[in-house]
Order: sequence, then C-alpha cells, then structure tokens
Amino acid sequence: MASPIKIALLGAGSATFSLGMIKDLCLTEGLAGSHVAFMDIDQERLAMVEKLARRYAGELGAPLTFESTTDRRVSLRDADFVINTASVVSHQSSIARRRIGEKHGYYYGRISVGEYNWRNMRFMLDVARDMEEICPDAWLIQAGNPVFEGCTLLTRETSLKVCGLCHGHYGYRRICNTIGIDWRRVTWQAPGLNHNIWLTHFYYEGKDAYPLVDEWIRSKGPEYWDMEVEALPLPPERQGQWTPELERAWDIALSRAAVHMYRMYGLLPIGDTPRSGGWWYHTDIETKRYWYGKPWGGQDTHLSWPLYVQNLERRIAEMTRLANDPKASLVEALGSQKTTEQHVPIIDGLVNNHEGQFQVNVPNRGALAGLPDDVVVEVPAIVNQIGIQPIRVHPLPPKLMLEQIYPNWLSMERQLLAFKTGDKSILLWNVLDNHLTRSYDQALSVLEDILAAEGNEDMNAFFHWPENW
Amino acid sequence: MASPIKIALLGAGSATFSLGMIKDLCLTEGLAGSHVAFMDIDQERLAMVEKLARRYAGELGAPLTFESTTDRRVSLRDADFVINTASVVSHQSSIARRRIGEKHGYYYGRISVGEYNWRNMRFMLDVARDMEEICPDAWLIQAGNPVFEGCTLLTRETSLKVCGLCHGHYGYRRICNTIGIDWRRVTWQAPGLNHNIWLTHFYYEGKDAYPLVDEWIRSKGPEYWDMEVEALPLPPERQGQWTPELERAWDIALSRAAVHMYRMYGLLPIGDTPRSGGWWYHTDIETKRYWYGKPWGGQDTHLSWPLYVQNLERRIAEMTRLANDPKASLVEALGSQKTTEQHVPIIDGLVNNHEGQFQVNVPNRGALAGLPDDVVVEVPAIVNQIGIQPIRVHPLPPKLMLEQIYPNWLSMERQLLAFKTGDKSILLWNVLDNHLTRSYDQALSVLEDILAAEGNEDMNAFFHWPENW
Repeated sequence: MASPIKIALLGAGSATFSLGMIKDLCLTEGLAGSHVAFMDIDQERLAMVEKLARRYAGELGAPLTFESTTDRRVSLRDADFVINTASVVSHQSSIARRRIGEKHGYYYGRISVGEYNWRNMRFMLDVARDMEEICPDAWLIQAGNPVFEGCTLLTRETSLKVCGLCHGHYGYRRICNTIGIDWRRVTWQAPGLNHNIWLTHFYYEGKDAYPLVDEWIRSKGPEYWDMEVEALPLPPERQGQWTPELERAWDIALSRAAVHMYRMYGLLPIGDTPRSGGWWYHTDIETKRYWYGKPWGGQDTHLSWPLYVQNLERRIAEMTRLANDPKASLVEALGSQKTTEQHVPIIDGLVNNHEGQFQVNVPNRGALAGLPDDVVVEVPAIVNQIGIQPIRVHPLPPKLMLEQIYPNWLSMERQLLAFKTGDKSILLWNVLDNHLTRSYDQALSVLEDILAAEGNEDMNAFFHWPENW
Repeated sequence: MASPIKIALLGAGSATFSLGMIKDLCLTEGLAGSHVAFMDIDQERLAMVEKLARRYAGELGAPLTFESTTDRRVSLRDADFVINTASVVSHQSSIARRRIGEKHGYYYGRISVGEYNWRNMRFMLDVARDMEEICPDAWLIQAGNPVFEGCTLLTRETSLKVCGLCHGHYGYRRICNTIGIDWRRVTWQAPGLNHNIWLTHFYYEGKDAYPLVDEWIRSKGPEYWDMEVEALPLPPERQGQWTPELERAWDIALSRAAVHMYRMYGLLPIGDTPRSGGWWYHTDIETKRYWYGKPWGGQDTHLSWPLYVQNLERRIAEMTRLANDPKASLVEALGSQKTTEQHVPIIDGLVNNHEGQFQVNVPNRGALAGLPDDVVVEVPAIVNQIGIQPIRVHPLPPKLMLEQIYPNWLSMERQLLAFKTGDKSILLWNVLDNHLTRSYDQALSVLEDILAAEGNEDMNAFFHWPENW
C-alpha cells in the first residue's frame, strides 16, 4: 500500500458530496490513513461537515484524519489530489438573472450572457494558479461546472494534471430501468463532450440492446410520453437523496425529446444531454411538457427547478439535524454502501493500482476523432498506476458531429475567447445566437440589463466593446 | 504562343456573361485562334449568343472559332477549359419557394430547404463526371453558384482541377468609391470563404487606408445611412450593365450592417459578405432598411430583388434587339474594353504564362489557417504556367473564425452530408437552425410544403427520413 495521501476538497460545505466522499474513503481499504482537508468559505457549514465526517469515520473505525480551513492555500499544502466541487455562483443570483430574462421575453429567463461559466472559470483558474505554486504535482479533479469549458481552459492555461468528472453518464441506467433490463448486465459506451454524450454501444448480456429500445418505443413509448405523473418511486441509489417528485421531473432519459434525438442521430443522448439538444424543445412550458413529460416538463422549468433547490435545502436541514443530534447513528442514516461517484475509486486506481474503467473529461489528443487535441472530451478511460488513460473511441456519426458536437465546441471556444479578451461583442453575439432572441435591440438591452444587475459588477467591469464601437 | 485552345462554356445562353467572355478573348492576343463551344439547353438563346459572338469577333477581326450545341458531352470534347456558369434553378422556382415561405411566416420567404444548392450541386457533379470521362485534364472553372459548397464537393468527389470564381471581391472598389479614394492605387487582400470574405489588408498609396474608413464613418456615416435615395449614378464599369436603381439597392458596402460587422470583427466584409452576416439584419423590411439603406433595404428584399430580375430581362431584350439588327455595331454597343471578369485572364496566365494575381476558390491545403485541407477557400493566387498557386494568407481573427467562418463551414458540411446521404432530417435541422423559425411544427410543415411543391419532385424523391423515424 502506498503512503497515506492528502486530499483537498474545495467547496466542502456541500454536505451531500462531502459525506459521500468520506463514505467512499472509509470503505476503500487502500486509502486508509488518508488526510482530508475540507475547504469552504462558509465556516458554519464547514464545521458541520467536519463534525459529521469525524463521527462517520469514527463509527466505522476508519483511520482518516481531517482538517478544515477557509483558506484555500492552506488546504492545498502537500495535497496529492484536489477535488474542486465549488461553484461561486449562487442559486439566488441565477434566479435574479432569470427574472431579468423573463422581463425581456425569454421563457423562464432562458437567456444567459455567460455569467455562470465566466465566474466559475475565473475561480477554477485561480485555484489552478494556486496549485501550480503550492502543489504542482497534484491531480486536479474538477467536479464543479462548467466541466467542459473549464477543463479545456485549464488544459490550455496551466501545466496541471486535470480530470473533469460528472455523473451524467449514469443516465444509461435510467434507460435500462425504463425498458426493464438490469443495468448491471449491460456493456455500454457513451463518448462526446461533457453534457453532450451519446450511447454508441449498448449491449445487454452480450447482445445489442438497441432493438429492445426500439421495441419499447413502439409498444410503450406513446403511452409513457402522454402519462401525467407527479412523482415516481425512488430507485435504491436515490433513497434519501431526493424526492419522488424530483425523480419524475428528472425522468427524461426516454422522453419524447430524447427519443427524437435518437431518431435524428441513431444514438441515444445520455444523462444531461437530452436537457439541451435543440431550442425547439424549450420555447415554453407547454412545449417542454410535450417533449419532456407531464406535469413537470423535465428538470429545467419554472415548476421543477424549485423542487431541486428545495431538495438541496432539505438535505442541508437533514445534515444539520444529524450534526446536532450526537446520539444519531450516522452509519444508519447515511448507509455504509459506496456511492456511485468516481472520485475516490479513481484516486484508488492511481494510488493503489486498483485498475478500473471510468468516464472522464480529459484533453482529447486523438481519443475522439474530429476534435482538436487541446479540447477536453468525455470518454471512458482505464485508470491505474500508469495514469488516466483515455480509450480511443469509435468516431461519432458525421451528422451528430455537425449538429451537436461542433456547435458545442464553437460555443466553448467563444466563451474562452471572451474570457481571455473581455470582448463584450462576443457576449452580444451569444445572446443573438440564442434562438429565442427576436431582435438586435432585445439582445442589446438584455445584455446590458444582466451586466448591470447586482452581483455582476466584476463581469461588467471586465468586459468592454471593441475599439471604434 | 501556345497552340490554340478549346473553351467549353456551359450556360452560354446568359448573353451578358458570354459576350463579356468573347470580348475578353478577342482582346487577349495570346488566345487568338481559340475555339469556343457554347452550350445551353435553350436553343434559341444559344443561337443568338453565337450570332452576336461571331459578329463581335468579326468586327474586331479576332480569329476565334465557334460552335454551339445543346449536348453537353459534345461541348466537352477536347476542351482545355470548361467554364460552368449555368444554374439549373430558375428565378421562377425561387419565387414559388419564397411564396411558400411567406405563407409560413418568413419575411420575403427567407427560408430554404437547400433546393437551390442541392440541384445545382447535382448538376455540377454531373458535369464533372462527364469531364472525367471526356476531358479529364481540362480545368473546370466554376462560375455558377454555390461556388463554396459545389467546389468543395467537386474537390472531394472528383479528380479534376477545379477553380471557383466570383466577382464579389471587387466590392473593395465600392468602398474606395464611397470614401473617395481611387481603387487603382489600392493594395488589398480579402480572404475567407466565397461570399464570406474580409478585408485584412487595405493600403492606399502605400499607407493603411482603414483610418480613412474610420474617418468616413465618423464624419459621413450617420448622414449616409439615413439618406433616402432611390437611384445612384452608374460608375463606368456598370454603364449599360444595370440601372441606377439597382446600383442603389446594391450599395451596401458601407451600409450600417457592413460597418456593424466591421465593428464586430475589426475587418470590413467585402462583396456579398454583408448580405448575410447575422439573422438580425434581415427580420423584416423596416429592419433591412435600417441596416442596408433606404428605400430598398439592400439587394435581397421584396422591393429590390424584382429590380434585379427585371434588369436581367432588360439585358436579354437588349441583346435580342442587337442580334436582330444586322446593321448595329456591336463594338459600339458593347464597347471594346476588357471586362473585369477573371476567367479569360486566368486562362491566359495558365496557357501563355502571362502571370497575374487573382481571387480564386481552391482547396485550402494550408492557405487559410484553421480550416481542413479539403475545404475550398477564397484566397488570392498567383497564376502562371506553373498553375493556380494560392497565397498563404494571414490567419483571420479568432472571433471572426468562430462567429462567421466556422458556422459557414459547418453549414457547408451539412449540405454535403445531406447531398450524399439523402437524410431528410438534415434538411429539417437546417430549417430549425434558421433563426426566423419559431417552432418545430412550423419547421416540419414548411419543409414538407417546399418539398411537395411543383418542380421539387426530384428532391422529394431523393430525401428520406432516417430509419425508425
């Protein structure tokens, strides 16, 4: 066994994620003795998380050690792994932006001038700069969004080893559940870009499972799409994590939209992929209900998104209650099963040579044909002591590249160029490119209104019109 | 002097183009003795053109020889150069399509399912296949649209030497005229894709002329943009070619739209480039008037396009009158100055080593950074006995690549993929991608209506939905 490692967890105040990671560490023999540095700017939440982590590890007798700090640079000292889960954009500020968007005529404020990505990328780059100074050999595991844009930025701007993680690819399990096959007996592959991945291979007990999807669409699809269902029973892995209403709102893996994309490209969109896919699925609530199911219209509507935010709050309240109840058994409350997150198993693979295959976001360098080397792609990888080794996947179909992958790539490149240059006209172009924008004046005024909003002072100061504007 | 050559001119019924070429041939000493094969499916127009060409050459005593044929394969026999100016899509059918578009709510029927390009590419490929069989060593000079998509297709699908030509790049002269400098003293460069070219270099008498543009914008722009002008005096090269109204409608080189693009990218869009550039310039007639000038709103409105079609008819009537008046002096009527077309000078360069620099559309192969080798780019080239030798130009600015060049490249690739596969869902995606499209149902119904229209039977039969649609 390798010597004990240090993991810095940035954004540790997210109790669900942090406790999940502690569970996985406790249950991974090869990582016994590890030291975890929790870092967050919210001191209260940080204290709560550390308390829960100590108790949980104590109950299991796992020899982990902990520290907490609000000083990022302290947390990075001697770190072998840095897991960055933090977002510096609050749900509150997203709500404020949505309101401005609605005022300008966008359904559920479905417009952005890129504040979320811009601010989080600035943060990600700040973290990376600190790492280059303090722990240049550590792996940066980037869990916070935007994974695609951010990891590409870090690949280009820093010398760090970066790996982006997301759990969207587990969406293939939803498909299995819906069509009634056991996902444990499935062999699958779904490469692409983060939030834009496509099921190129899908075998059930060794045989192509796409015909089962086709049969389900034929025999069950229409009834399923028109069902009005408020809530769904929770599968085992969601127990305690979220509510039955949320389960239903998130239930879009075989929605009409997902199946439409499948018809367009011959491959099913996986995880977060069907949440976008084309402006025409998203113009208003009735349209979203048609494409994503009733009554919620998928997870991104004014009806369902509040469920998600409420659920986060419910989880925090639950954790707070546990923290304040010294007699509660945390093992009983949180279980003693590993989570499905890949962070700890990947660390275990790298440190202890416990080889595994994972879905990672890493610089392309030939893994996915048709994209430049320095663009971060989401592909399967073999992880062991040798490193994170992407598997060169089959090329995606040309139509899919032209209509889904390349436009996404261009959008990323525009965001990175705007990030680098501060050129406000790129933000304007992006607003104009939003299909719901109806006129130049509308684009200009929504852009100015969002930039002028409280909380966007930093971005407003950074961006400027080109010369001679 | 090289031995006499044979030029096959496809679409020779276009009297203006054909007579212009004959003028240039008559006035190019090194091409004396050339043989021209006029080919068109319109026998009457063909006869008229041959008659006019013989008389014109006779008046000048130029030793050219001629043949006419409605059989393309006959015209290609022993050809050294094939100039393809033909379009197999009539203005009539475009008008019919516009009506369908208007019925579905698109301003001036500004929607297409790609019929024009699809049908013309089929034709261009048919010509090329015949050439591979009959005159495989001949140069194909492609003058008919779509130059970008078509020449890229021919580059990929055939073994021919292909060069696309357009006269849009002369738009830099309009800019010179408007800001009041003599274009003969200008050194310029404007690379890109056909109809998407940008003035990267602009020197007047050795000095950067962009400050003169800036000064014009500051001091004259606002007044110029708000002027209400029906007609403009014709510059010498337009005399007899078109009407003063047309001159005004076409007068967009320094329109508000063109200057807006200049502000966005730091480079002026040249020729046909400002005719597109962004959906927001084109939503309705008032918007177009704002961006392209009053009263016509540029050349692509319901007010101005009919002027263009009428002018073509006027030119045909004029040619017919000349053909029927054996006493008329053609040299007097048509002049004895070379045209500004590049076809004959390029042939002269290749055949007689009369070196010159031209604006051509040829496979990229490194001439314009950032685009694949087998994409046809519009760049300057040195032409002499060695061949058509593209000049490797400076890279275009990243923002321009991301917002103007790459989206155009993707659109071309989608058209070529649709052309190859017959996949109707690509046509649907293109209609959805049109920013004026408001809903999925609208896209589907306008697609079906256009495909079902009279004249589109071939396309409707060729395209099919993907499996399991």
